[in-house]
Amino acid sequence: MRQAVLAAAVGILATEGLSGATVAAVARSAGVHETSVYRRWRTRENLILDALTTELDTALPIPDTGDVREDLLRFFSSLARLLAGPQGRALLRLSVEHDDTLDDRRRPYWTERLERAAVMVERGVERGELEPGTDPGLLIEAVSGPLFARVLVSDTPWDDGLVPRLVALTLDGSRPRT
Amino acid sequence: MRQAVLAAAVGILATEGLSGATVAAVARSAGVHETSVYRRWRTRENLILDALTTELDTALPIPDTGDVREDLLRFFSSLARLLAGPQGRALLRLSVEHDDTLDDRRRPYWTERLERAAVMVERGVERGELEPGTDPGLLIEAVSGPLFARVLVSDTPWDDGLVPRLVALTLDGSRPRT
Repeated sequence: MRQAVLAAAVGILATEGLSGATVAAVARSAGVHETSVYRRWRTRENLILDALTTELDTALPIPDTGDVREDLLRFFSSLARLLAGPQGRALLRLSVEHDDTLDDRRRPYWTERLERAAVMVERGVERGELEPGTDPGLLIEAVSGPLFARVLVSDTPWDDGLVPRLVALTLDGSRPRT
Repeated sequence: MRQAVLAAAVGILATEGLSGATVAAVARSAGVHETSVYRRWRTRENLILDALTTELDTALPIPDTGDVREDLLRFFSSLARLLAGPQGRALLRLSVEHDDTLDDRRRPYWTERLERAAVMVERGVERGELEPGTDPGLLIEAVSGPLFARVLVSDTPWDDGLVPRLVALTLDGSRPRT
């Protein structure tokens, strides 16, 4: 039942937004009784947060190929795919929508998902592929930030080349290597 | 009169948001007649767009010091200062707020401001400080994207070190330079 209810919640969040994601609507869509949903999650807020977290964890696996560039390409291609689809865009827009009941607990979710990605950079440093002082969070932000900004601020779509170019910029820099 | 009205509009947008920025409220705050505002800007939408654009152009000058790192540090420090203040945060939040009357024309404004910044990178390439194939827009996005994302998505404040570290990452990369 858990998977069916969470999938229904993600579907409704993506199409109707936060205001449409009531326990009644989710229960109806999942074909379960409303009381069963309340028994398991107790509040609408718990249900929504559980749905968002589960969705992001599944859609954003952390690769471990032994090569930092390849790991970053795979991870950020997943993120870009997620954000380019209607569901991912809706999930992101949802995080910046105003809702007093959820605000404090929704914000950290994308951040926590990205913090898990730091390990790819740390492994690259251990293998000597990256400078010892490399800041994992900074590198993750420099690739993910432009994707978030394109969805939220400039509403600019991207082609398959954007992630490789951002990864190359953060690894190789733009100053000549002689 | 133009400056007083635009300053009043920016102040109201920052404190009250889009919905509070009516022509009546702006005229009252600027101490002018509502009819004078309508005579000059014709619509509330024109007034708001003019106010936002003028504000951003003034707050974000494009430096030309002869050194690409210094130019980028100065420009992005201005952007970071703007976004860290209540007015800048409000202007950015405003760009992502839903409003059918403004949506199509508000979005491009941050993008256009940042496009003007590309010339700093182009000058760096001409001076041989950067690789010939450097994509100016990509470099600008890799530094500005994380700032936008911190305001909108993670709600994480930053210290004075963030911009220099982002600029260093996009110029020097994270792979060892031997």
